[in-house]
Amino acid sequence: MTDTAWQDRPVVVTGGAGFIGASLVRRLAGLGARVTVIDRMLAEYGANPFNLDGLGGRIRLIEADIGDAAPTAAAIGEAATVFNLAGQTSHMDSMQRPLEDLQLNQEANLRFLEHLRRANPRVRVIFTSTRQLYGPPQHLPVAEDHPVAPPDINGIHKFAAEAYHLLYARVHGLPATALRLTNVFGPRMRIRDARQGFLGIWLRHAVEDTAFEVWGGTQRRDFTYVEDLVDALLLTAGCDATIGRVYNVGGGPPATLLEVARLLVETAGSGRFELREFPAERRKIDIGDFYSDDRAFREATGWQPATSLAEGLARSVAFYRQHAAHYL
Amino acid sequence: MTDTAWQDRPVVVTGGAGFIGASLVRRLAGLGARVTVIDRMLAEYGANPFNLDGLGGRIRLIEADIGDAAPTAAAIGEAATVFNLAGQTSHMDSMQRPLEDLQLNQEANLRFLEHLRRANPRVRVIFTSTRQLYGPPQHLPVAEDHPVAPPDINGIHKFAAEAYHLLYARVHGLPATALRLTNVFGPRMRIRDARQGFLGIWLRHAVEDTAFEVWGGTQRRDFTYVEDLVDALLLTAGCDATIGRVYNVGGGPPATLLEVARLLVETAGSGRFELREFPAERRKIDIGDFYSDDRAFREATGWQPATSLAEGLARSVAFYRQHAAHYL
Repeated sequence: MTDTAWQDRPVVVTGGAGFIGASLVRRLAGLGARVTVIDRMLAEYGANPFNLDGLGGRIRLIEADIGDAAPTAAAIGEAATVFNLAGQTSHMDSMQRPLEDLQLNQEANLRFLEHLRRANPRVRVIFTSTRQLYGPPQHLPVAEDHPVAPPDINGIHKFAAEAYHLLYARVHGLPATALRLTNVFGPRMRIRDARQGFLGIWLRHAVEDTAFEVWGGTQRRDFTYVEDLVDALLLTAGCDATIGRVYNVGGGPPATLLEVARLLVETAGSGRFELREFPAERRKIDIGDFYSDDRAFREATGWQPATSLAEGLARSVAFYRQHAAHYL
Repeated sequence: MTDTAWQDRPVVVTGGAGFIGASLVRRLAGLGARVTVIDRMLAEYGANPFNLDGLGGRIRLIEADIGDAAPTAAAIGEAATVFNLAGQTSHMDSMQRPLEDLQLNQEANLRFLEHLRRANPRVRVIFTSTRQLYGPPQHLPVAEDHPVAPPDINGIHKFAAEAYHLLYARVHGLPATALRLTNVFGPRMRIRDARQGFLGIWLRHAVEDTAFEVWGGTQRRDFTYVEDLVDALLLTAGCDATIGRVYNVGGGPPATLLEVARLLVETAGSGRFELREFPAERRKIDIGDFYSDDRAFREATGWQPATSLAEGLARSVAFYRQHAAHYL
């Protein structure tokens, strides 16, 4: 789809008050789309009213669970595209409250898809899944045919929700695509804690000029700057060849956590870090080295990330310096 | 474990009034185990009071959902072994009532495991999963490292429930093993309809001397006679090397559906069949040819099936001839 194709297009973004969701909503609003956000507004899981600051009358916000048909029926019925991003991302929370994670990350998606297939069975759906579901990689980089071995409750539920989308595409003809994201970072992510990934809490300490802990440090990971991911989401929506399929979306070249920590401190000119052994409790669900093979996605959509890790970190630091009060 | 090791052993069998469950319960009772059955007694999903006929005072029956802690606490607290077989097996039901399947096949297991890890964290657990979760095979035979691509709601939920068991083994130290079963058949399966597999309804027609439909006919499948599966379950419980792992459990050499239908009619000396094209609605969730590579399981446990397909069919026909009133 060209940028102009979004003009006046009715689009639903679930989880649209969260980190990735709001970044997408802002882009879509800028392109003139008629955006409806469906979000439970759970701060703990990343929803932040400030993420939608300034969009005022240009978007509609429905504060609801995506599994709840009544409040969302009108928006869902008229949507041409649904970006289904709602969920909670914390691996530790999922282990401590597995039934809540089941409701949020899986059951709500099943209810949502049941509504979609009845109310609007031809709506284009993009679902964001996670590379977490692969578990510790058997080889690197990890392509889509790598065995699925979820290392935690969150990974089990995200895989099931992803499988629902692919099943509804195949059996019910719902044109859905699932994307397995890696470490996404940038403005508007939750930085109060590590619920949206370790980079969140690192950014906080860098901006506050305090010390953060780097666990291990030698693990290699790949990173996607959020605006590059927004590009990926928009490209997917316009690419029918991706319907019914699941893709990895990676980023730039992988870096070790130690390299990232150094780069962050250097970029910010503030903060410092301490190397620590990996805590035992977390080691049980850690996946070690991970980076994606996302060639299939790049070939299908033409996507490639435009923002280097250094540039992404610099923009993130600048954002949180300016808006710290809303994220701390 | 030797047969005598089951004497006086407190054992819980969930789904113990169902087809496989009751076959296991009868064997365990014969070995002198103190068996508690936890079963919701849903006839539609295979529970049948007659399956436990004659066991009277020798077993305890708790009519409850496995996810319901209160009624099951005492039995779970004292168990040395839990065979977790409860669930519903119909692929079509799962597509028509996906939220019910989520509750029965997945959420109840998560609640059950949360109880187990708190009340009895060292209890040996054997969970029965399904080969359905592989989806249409990419190659044959299918070993455990074949990609998981659930072709229906039931497959998604069984995979998640299996993943819970493996996760609780790894993270919480619960000594659990999961077994992916193929077409299990024999006395005490539901034959009123195809909810427990096509062989159920075929057996009904053979015994009633009426016509059944064979859809397609060229698909190759493998089959496990239920008493051989009971052997597999008991061997697994006694084999610590299987803890934290998942295995295929197959059977004898694969046969085409047409071969099986002919063998059944010939064995029974009654019934007949008609070849039909695969119905469109079901083709969407059919997996085509399937047979398991179960060498890993055989090597770990020493199991091998003792009952040929012909012999298993003969015993099944004899059972349903004698007890038709309880299954029709």
